[in-house]
Amino acid sequence: MDDPRPTVGVVGAGQLARMCWQAAIGLDVDLRVLAARADDAAAAVLPYPHIGDADDPDALRRFAAACDVLTLDHELVDTGTLAALVEDGVTVRPGPRALRFAQDKAYQRRSFADAGLPVPAFTVTGDLAAAEAFAVGHGWPVVCKRPRGGYDGRGVWSVDDASALATAWEEAAVDGDEVLVERGVAIDRELAVVVARGPDEAHTAAPVIETVQRDGMLRELVVPARVPADVQRDALDLAAAVVDLVDVVGICAVELFWDGTGLLVNEIATRPHNSGHWTIDGATTSQFENHLRAVLGLPLGGMDATAPAVCSVNVVGDASGSWPQARLADALAVPDVHVHLYGKTPRPERKLGHVTATARDLGTARARAHAAVAALSGPVGGVDG
Amino acid sequence: MDDPRPTVGVVGAGQLARMCWQAAIGLDVDLRVLAARADDAAAAVLPYPHIGDADDPDALRRFAAACDVLTLDHELVDTGTLAALVEDGVTVRPGPRALRFAQDKAYQRRSFADAGLPVPAFTVTGDLAAAEAFAVGHGWPVVCKRPRGGYDGRGVWSVDDASALATAWEEAAVDGDEVLVERGVAIDRELAVVVARGPDEAHTAAPVIETVQRDGMLRELVVPARVPADVQRDALDLAAAVVDLVDVVGICAVELFWDGTGLLVNEIATRPHNSGHWTIDGATTSQFENHLRAVLGLPLGGMDATAPAVCSVNVVGDASGSWPQARLADALAVPDVHVHLYGKTPRPERKLGHVTATARDLGTARARAHAAVAALSGPVGGVDG
Repeated sequence: MDDPRPTVGVVGAGQLARMCWQAAIGLDVDLRVLAARADDAAAAVLPYPHIGDADDPDALRRFAAACDVLTLDHELVDTGTLAALVEDGVTVRPGPRALRFAQDKAYQRRSFADAGLPVPAFTVTGDLAAAEAFAVGHGWPVVCKRPRGGYDGRGVWSVDDASALATAWEEAAVDGDEVLVERGVAIDRELAVVVARGPDEAHTAAPVIETVQRDGMLRELVVPARVPADVQRDALDLAAAVVDLVDVVGICAVELFWDGTGLLVNEIATRPHNSGHWTIDGATTSQFENHLRAVLGLPLGGMDATAPAVCSVNVVGDASGSWPQARLADALAVPDVHVHLYGKTPRPERKLGHVTATARDLGTARARAHAAVAALSGPVGGVDG
Repeated sequence: MDDPRPTVGVVGAGQLARMCWQAAIGLDVDLRVLAARADDAAAAVLPYPHIGDADDPDALRRFAAACDVLTLDHELVDTGTLAALVEDGVTVRPGPRALRFAQDKAYQRRSFADAGLPVPAFTVTGDLAAAEAFAVGHGWPVVCKRPRGGYDGRGVWSVDDASALATAWEEAAVDGDEVLVERGVAIDRELAVVVARGPDEAHTAAPVIETVQRDGMLRELVVPARVPADVQRDALDLAAAVVDLVDVVGICAVELFWDGTGLLVNEIATRPHNSGHWTIDGATTSQFENHLRAVLGLPLGGMDATAPAVCSVNVVGDASGSWPQARLADALAVPDVHVHLYGKTPRPERKLGHVTATARDLGTARARAHAAVAALSGPVGGVDG
């Protein structure tokens, strides 16, 4: 009998592809990566990584030819190229139409608003005067976002007055690009919902996640989110509406703001996401396994939490450039923590790993996750408070 | 700063090394395997497997030179060669003295008996007449075991009378080797305890496991074991005494018989073991992560069960030689199951994978695990009852 094992190709080879690979080994799915460098987080841990430039349509085409389905580790792939691959019969999940939402925050915001989803008040403009008029009309602060290419706080400026806006504008509106300008929301809690959705439109969501950001980067998350039960239900409903609108296949992370009275959709990622890393150790099925199951058209697994309380904290590179691995023993001395290191060369502010703690209560889970991350970060480490 | 990531070398590249690799990726431990073939279960999923013969002392020495610590996927490595490596400064965990217990069932049984551990009545003899006299004295049936090289029921014969004994003896006592002859225990339950033990003698155990064997191969296990609480406590105490006697570093699986009134130590494996596969999905720390932590001298993780009931069932090759992967969708349609496939080419009676189900009660966990394995095994599959 022929070998029926499917091949999934991932464009990109960062920590998301690396954690997908751990799940792929269990399902005996052949995962291949198109890596920029041989020492990328995922490229270093699997046989025969393809080294190539995801911006090169020919490289992408050659890579896709070896795979049954193509998926993505990041959003930075040209949707036109992907559309041409689809035209040629390549299965791309999520598809280029879904990917456009994640690539273009202005398009995403307009589409969500048009569909009647609650979003922060916003305008999209290439004109500084119009941006200032929006801020005056809605009140300061406002947040300026470059619609494309931002991540972990890059490409986002929160400004309190006209002078700060003008300064930010010089970076935000490069080459006369339009900027997404939105009202600064007085955020009570930042939430996220991680949803897996199959090609048959079936979807399953993990419990609502509460995230703690600093400098625009996710630092910590806790499950369950500390918001009322009806807010959790509303968040799950909103996320379901979002994934259906976007028509995503795979994992979609929906980030939400709760201002104490209502929910607003902030933005989405159409791939496994930092806010879902806890599912490896704290949910019945991890986001990485469910991403594979979704893009392969396999039935999805449930994503219920397996512990009363879960906390994940990111391990972020500090100024010393030291390896967290050097202090692994101290971290593993903390009870019931799960350490995940991504094999990346340390650099300041680089995400190097995460720690998930499961416990009977959030206080214990948080204390343990932070203690382990503090240990990994060493005496001069960037410990999160 | 120098890269502090440690390298663990595994002699052998079967499914145990494969599942260790999944854990090693998370801890950013560089795992290398000495594989007989490039398509061995672990060799196929990591970069640059070393292909070589574990029986060749020079191959073993070259492999060890590239590793910080050497460990084992199977028992079939010459302890003399390992002792010579230790003499040369190589860290081998478990060490050759511990390995001798696992390699030589006669030595193991005598040592356990000498230490006062409860074991089935036994004799070790190369003489058929002495074996028959033992059987007559203790009553039929008796079990004949070749002290070395047996696994999954190979090298074990249960015989009911003198004629069957004589037939078995022709295979068991090849070349005049001694045979371990033991009284056939009227087993009420077969139990196992998986213990992780570090070089500092600290150890941690998973809850007592109940195993179901057929034709000498482990087919199914359930946690918690269906024996009284005091029997569970006694089993954990016995296992602790065993690992201290054997002085194992790494995972040790201790197999026990319960006859309804008392516990007997059957035999041990000084490596991750089939009876501990459920810990990947059902315990705080898996046996594979704890094996790595133990051999690296890192603090051990707790191995408590994370669900009220866990059941694992092996996926075993059937006569058709079909791939379980071809029916993965049907298996994943069963709720809350974790499918692990080892990437091995199907052959009749070959272990190809396992399925673990977690649930609120054992009935549900067992039904789900069996349903998923039945699906993977297909219409002609060797489903376990």
